[in-house]
Amino acid sequence: MATPAAPVLALTSGEPAGIGPELVLMLAAEGVAGTRPVAVGDPGLLAERAAALGLAVELVELAPGEAVPAARPGRLPVWPVALRAPVRPGVLEVANADYVLETLDVAIHACRAGQAAGMVTAPLHKGVILDAGHARFTGHTEYLRDACGVEEVVMMLATDAALHAERPGWMGSAALRVALATTHLPLREVADAITRERLMRVLRILDADLMRWFGVARPRIAVCGLNPHAGEGGHLGREELEVIEPTLEALRGEGLTLDGPLPADTLFTPRHLTGVDAVLAMYHDQGLPVLKYAGFGRAANITLGLPLVRTSVDHGTALDLAGTGRADPGSLRVAVALAAQMAARGGGN
Amino acid sequence: MATPAAPVLALTSGEPAGIGPELVLMLAAEGVAGTRPVAVGDPGLLAERAAALGLAVELVELAPGEAVPAARPGRLPVWPVALRAPVRPGVLEVANADYVLETLDVAIHACRAGQAAGMVTAPLHKGVILDAGHARFTGHTEYLRDACGVEEVVMMLATDAALHAERPGWMGSAALRVALATTHLPLREVADAITRERLMRVLRILDADLMRWFGVARPRIAVCGLNPHAGEGGHLGREELEVIEPTLEALRGEGLTLDGPLPADTLFTPRHLTGVDAVLAMYHDQGLPVLKYAGFGRAANITLGLPLVRTSVDHGTALDLAGTGRADPGSLRVAVALAAQMAARGGGN
Repeated sequence: MATPAAPVLALTSGEPAGIGPELVLMLAAEGVAGTRPVAVGDPGLLAERAAALGLAVELVELAPGEAVPAARPGRLPVWPVALRAPVRPGVLEVANADYVLETLDVAIHACRAGQAAGMVTAPLHKGVILDAGHARFTGHTEYLRDACGVEEVVMMLATDAALHAERPGWMGSAALRVALATTHLPLREVADAITRERLMRVLRILDADLMRWFGVARPRIAVCGLNPHAGEGGHLGREELEVIEPTLEALRGEGLTLDGPLPADTLFTPRHLTGVDAVLAMYHDQGLPVLKYAGFGRAANITLGLPLVRTSVDHGTALDLAGTGRADPGSLRVAVALAAQMAARGGGN
Repeated sequence: MATPAAPVLALTSGEPAGIGPELVLMLAAEGVAGTRPVAVGDPGLLAERAAALGLAVELVELAPGEAVPAARPGRLPVWPVALRAPVRPGVLEVANADYVLETLDVAIHACRAGQAAGMVTAPLHKGVILDAGHARFTGHTEYLRDACGVEEVVMMLATDAALHAERPGWMGSAALRVALATTHLPLREVADAITRERLMRVLRILDADLMRWFGVARPRIAVCGLNPHAGEGGHLGREELEVIEPTLEALRGEGLTLDGPLPADTLFTPRHLTGVDAVLAMYHDQGLPVLKYAGFGRAANITLGLPLVRTSVDHGTALDLAGTGRADPGSLRVAVALAAQMAARGGGN
């Protein structure tokens, strides 16, 4: 066999009225090395948006089962999904909610059938999907979890710099990976959601997926406390003593390498990050502000715990920017590079 | 009148078994430009620690009312306070809790009497002060608040880089100022502590003190939401809609310039930080991890709302490092420079 072909990645173009379609086109125009991206979306929409923005991208519609050609700047293969209603940039249209979900289904199927080595998602708009009557829809991540039939998934963000480091650690650079024990919960519900069971599941997934997809032989994970100063010995909250510490101890008994629980404002310093492969924050705003600050528009979101590779941009649909050409494809570029790296390490087609 | 003399700063040397005394000595050995620091502590302790660490510092004990000499590397004026019990580095001694509090009283008195233009505090150990029977002691900040008879104070941290920027903003640099709406509370108590009244008091103090001590003519403050995504229109918590937004609107009516409430993981990016003078985070671990990450051991703590200048290191007593000479005076250096700058801008002796 010759050199293995670059892995195929399914790029769902997301909410059609948002910046997703143009980000995918921008990336195709500049070209993507080391992978073969295939857009999942409406070819007419993509053609129209490319023309409106003056992006020279040749769209190549692929039939089911048709081989994906090698990547080349200015050429974008497409797995077609038909819009349900016409699109104007910036204007949400409830009728297209099912279109967005179908792009996800196509990408998931391609991954599970071995036609793609992973999927990368442009942003969708949760509100319009709820308004369309999908009352239980809470986001890409949960949709993928249910579609793949797994009990728990873990959201992790990584900065661009983390792509280029075998064992990131801070080391004076901006290489960070931050996973979350809880995600989109009101702050007042967070403390009760930090249970021994949840932490066990999340840390086992994080540990296993750092090995499988990131090529880390023996992951070292630094874990934040829940309370300021990690509870300061019980003076500022007892969850560290009663829940987090016993859980980490039990997992160490299973062979996991875990630091903490550490105060979050101490953990994100070189002394504690050096040699660490990922940080587990207890909640969204404990971990993501520093990740986004360090990543500076060059971070991507990864769903762990799935039987497939899935990465995503770290931003929303930006309806106000759609169609203007001012959207920044930086995060999509990182998400694609990350998915390609994960696919290469973890197997795939 | 000749060039005004450099401002006098009272440096309380903190817990005598911790790293405070040696940090003050290290700073005196290297010299401090633009200010006249006076250590507040036991001259014998300081002499002993200097000798043990081989620091060439001449201690100059000052009598009450005696003029503070010009600063010079290797010379450290001292306002003496007598230890209650002998000290071994790393070993807490309950009898010395009153010594620590007396150093604070001396510094506060010097500021209020116009003998010092501000005070800078090395770390104390809360536990030993509680153990000594001061059951209501919760920290430097609250002690100063009560000693000065004010109702509310605000904790703000600033990075070293913020010293050198008139209007910090991110601008690609690491210049950040982050104030907190709540400080040392268990996470599960935070949501209920975010009240309209508290936010009004905190934001008025922040606005007024950015003008008074930081020379900002018209402060612009970026305010975080409480919940992830700042509540996402009520889907992830209602405090933004019910408490934070109406409060910001009322304060805008008083003339304050306020951005937000913004999602914390969006706010700490160049797009939102540019032109901003300070960030208000709703709680400790929402704001301080990014500040400490950006500051990298070169941040300091400032108490706003007092009638005097008070800055502090951003770390603890580090009992395990005391007496080893391995402690890093970086944060104390920033705290001193910041206090000198505040004193120069806000008046003082």
